[in-house]
Amino acid sequence: MNRLYHVPLSPFCRKVRLVLAEKKIEAELVEERYWERDPDFMRRNPAGKVPILRLGEMNLAESSAICEYLEEVYPTPALMPKDVEGRYEVRRLVSWFDDKFHQEVTSNLLYERVNRKLMKSGYPVSANVKAGSKGIKYHLDYMAWLLDRRRWLAGDAMTLADFTAAAHLSCLDYTSDVDWNRSAVVKDWYAKIKSRPAFRSLLVDQVPGFPQPAHYADLDF
Amino acid sequence: MNRLYHVPLSPFCRKVRLVLAEKKIEAELVEERYWERDPDFMRRNPAGKVPILRLGEMNLAESSAICEYLEEVYPTPALMPKDVEGRYEVRRLVSWFDDKFHQEVTSNLLYERVNRKLMKSGYPVSANVKAGSKGIKYHLDYMAWLLDRRRWLAGDAMTLADFTAAAHLSCLDYTSDVDWNRSAVVKDWYAKIKSRPAFRSLLVDQVPGFPQPAHYADLDF
Repeated sequence: MNRLYHVPLSPFCRKVRLVLAEKKIEAELVEERYWERDPDFMRRNPAGKVPILRLGEMNLAESSAICEYLEEVYPTPALMPKDVEGRYEVRRLVSWFDDKFHQEVTSNLLYERVNRKLMKSGYPVSANVKAGSKGIKYHLDYMAWLLDRRRWLAGDAMTLADFTAAAHLSCLDYTSDVDWNRSAVVKDWYAKIKSRPAFRSLLVDQVPGFPQPAHYADLDF
Repeated sequence: MNRLYHVPLSPFCRKVRLVLAEKKIEAELVEERYWERDPDFMRRNPAGKVPILRLGEMNLAESSAICEYLEEVYPTPALMPKDVEGRYEVRRLVSWFDDKFHQEVTSNLLYERVNRKLMKSGYPVSANVKAGSKGIKYHLDYMAWLLDRRRWLAGDAMTLADFTAAAHLSCLDYTSDVDWNRSAVVKDWYAKIKSRPAFRSLLVDQVPGFPQPAHYADLDF
């Protein structure tokens, strides 16, 4: 049985969960409190991070390498365009969200509020939370700019770029950090992604100490 | 004429420079002090980062997306393996260096010592420098572990994984932060990479205020 070692509110784990579900690859979810550095887990992954995907005999690490691998081995349904410029644009946006959005928004909001409490590493630093609240507005506006010109973030088809962005935003939606009224096109885009069968497992996540807000699992949010 | 907007001691820019040179794609180097946020530059790249590659009519951003694009459009000489497991391993290691090594080593040593001075953002934080000096030992040992088992980092052929690691280490070598006596296999690996024609442009880099140390450009270091 395939296994995904993960934590529920990790955007990198959620990206892999979405890709697995969209491609109908079954994998058992195993929650891994990686910051406790369990020796068995460290053996599976010397980087000491999640996600780790055990797929058959392989232990796969690094979410972007995992997603590219899954796309190559399970090409249907496709999450990458067929043309080289399209693939570039998807990879650019995956990096945009996993690097820039992650650093400016996810780290400042989610990690300050949730991860610090789970990992018992002190109180949120309010300057970081403030920077994150400011940063998310700029990023939502950038998404709106893209979605005014395209049906999906990277072009006319849904791709890994959409799943990457949705993975980050869904974590932040769990902590009620997304103002969906800021842009109608972004809200419509999220409603389309959220109603996909692949998204269902994310909507039942529960994190002890952080009750799920009512709008989070509501498809008509 | 193609153009690469870059800064000399950026591992992400160096990775792209190595790929361009190895594939014999000519590109003029334009130094871009991105932290001064020149409006023309911000128009080319809303992320406000380097590298940006102007290739024909395209402006390409995000080093990993750029390198994958170059590999697809200029497949010879190949920097990615032909088999899917090999490509996974290259991508895993690219992420290892660009994420984990970058966060634990490059940021703590290079950015504290060099970037802070260039960007006039205060003095190095000594706890970070200390963490970086400790971190690089662990990473050199991990590289030695890989190179005891393989000719190159990801397998029997030189790949993008080697260029990514060499891009980080060459920046740190400029600031004399690499103890080449720690591991003979790592030193041999770096000597092989350093003597490639693609590496030459990196060896003539000069950063004002940071004179190049004698061993840096020496092929017999």
